[in-house]
Amino acid sequence: MTRISPGKLYGVGVGPGDPELLTVKGVRLIQQAPVVAFPEGVQGKPGIAEQIVAPWLRAGQVKLPLSFPYVQAEEVLWAAWELAADQVQSCLQQGLDVVFVSEGDISFYSTFTYLAQTLQTRDPNVLIEAVPGIASPMAAAAVLGIPLTVRSQRLAILPALYAVADLETALQTSDVVVLMKVSSVYALVWQVLERYGLLHQSYIVERATQPSQVIYRDLSDRPQLDLPYFSLLIVYTNACKP
Amino acid sequence: MTRISPGKLYGVGVGPGDPELLTVKGVRLIQQAPVVAFPEGVQGKPGIAEQIVAPWLRAGQVKLPLSFPYVQAEEVLWAAWELAADQVQSCLQQGLDVVFVSEGDISFYSTFTYLAQTLQTRDPNVLIEAVPGIASPMAAAAVLGIPLTVRSQRLAILPALYAVADLETALQTSDVVVLMKVSSVYALVWQVLERYGLLHQSYIVERATQPSQVIYRDLSDRPQLDLPYFSLLIVYTNACKP
Repeated sequence: MTRISPGKLYGVGVGPGDPELLTVKGVRLIQQAPVVAFPEGVQGKPGIAEQIVAPWLRAGQVKLPLSFPYVQAEEVLWAAWELAADQVQSCLQQGLDVVFVSEGDISFYSTFTYLAQTLQTRDPNVLIEAVPGIASPMAAAAVLGIPLTVRSQRLAILPALYAVADLETALQTSDVVVLMKVSSVYALVWQVLERYGLLHQSYIVERATQPSQVIYRDLSDRPQLDLPYFSLLIVYTNACKP
Repeated sequence: MTRISPGKLYGVGVGPGDPELLTVKGVRLIQQAPVVAFPEGVQGKPGIAEQIVAPWLRAGQVKLPLSFPYVQAEEVLWAAWELAADQVQSCLQQGLDVVFVSEGDISFYSTFTYLAQTLQTRDPNVLIEAVPGIASPMAAAAVLGIPLTVRSQRLAILPALYAVADLETALQTSDVVVLMKVSSVYALVWQVLERYGLLHQSYIVERATQPSQVIYRDLSDRPQLDLPYFSLLIVYTNACKP
């Protein structure tokens, strides 16, 4: 019997939306891979990472959608990660390399972490390489045409708002604050920013670099906004605008 | 007389070091540009961004090194930005597009900000586009093979250490802390991390993805380190390792 040498799992961050914002390395790995995996979309629509890489795929590549449900329940998440790991592991054991793509950067609040850690728990020798991508705060600053940070500015990034105190601490101790997924808590965040007198220096970017991108500059007159999931808030807490 | 339509300035973040970590868009713009500008190197050596883009340049492109001195003195910095703006503006007025490249991301502690703002002050209608790049914290996490952030973790990024209190605040209020340029203050930072019992959960990456990359995991036995300028510290403040 010949022993097949196992495949390698690459995690590739594919950036915020514009397919040209993939790295050269990311495109090369995607095009070389026999199997391209991604978080499956919801309601029958293709997922975001799948849409971003679509222009780069070649005919004949296996597309492997993996289910990562948007829920909080630990046991549901664990079961999903185990199932995804089964599917990827099966490819690796057949000697096939797998490229898992996910939007933004691959180490920054990415689904890839759970997949990689589940596989490493099963087999510490599994071959895994992470390839960074453009993260959404950097993409948002670029489309706004203003710096995210300069010189000695301290940056705080909050993935979502679990407690108003976290936002207040960040506003008090940082020069720039990014709130990653602001849609569900926007009205509350607006009230905090109003209290701190920071609405003029606050920006929202929906789906940076995607065709449906929307930008709001100065939130003073916007106590309510109907925002999509991938909406990001940037607040400059200094008295001076950047 | 024919009026020449002015050129456009592109700021392209070229990532942490590996030339394959440029974006596809960045490479396209660099290769199309008649003029490629970059911060000039020190001591006669090519600058970092210049080295990163070298494999992508075409014959016949004008290379425009710009002087951005590593000093604190405001009047010296202002004079340098004005001179750099003169050089770029001269190209734009001749109808030539200019691509300014700088390491990492273009909106994240980047020299590009000063160049763009100086030009915008002179002429609010100047054409400028920022193209994001891979920022060093994301590159460092990728080469470490661990996530930078997961789930609800709060991230603080400090560009350098101006006051120990800033580091202590970040350690107390964030789950992950990145110190961008740690070389000059390392011994002091080590003492703070020892006091907080966080040395085991601290990592340093020198020159992520460059050929001379060095990684230190667990700083317990390293109260002194001789680090280069581009060294980055990541501290996971949670009790559990990521």
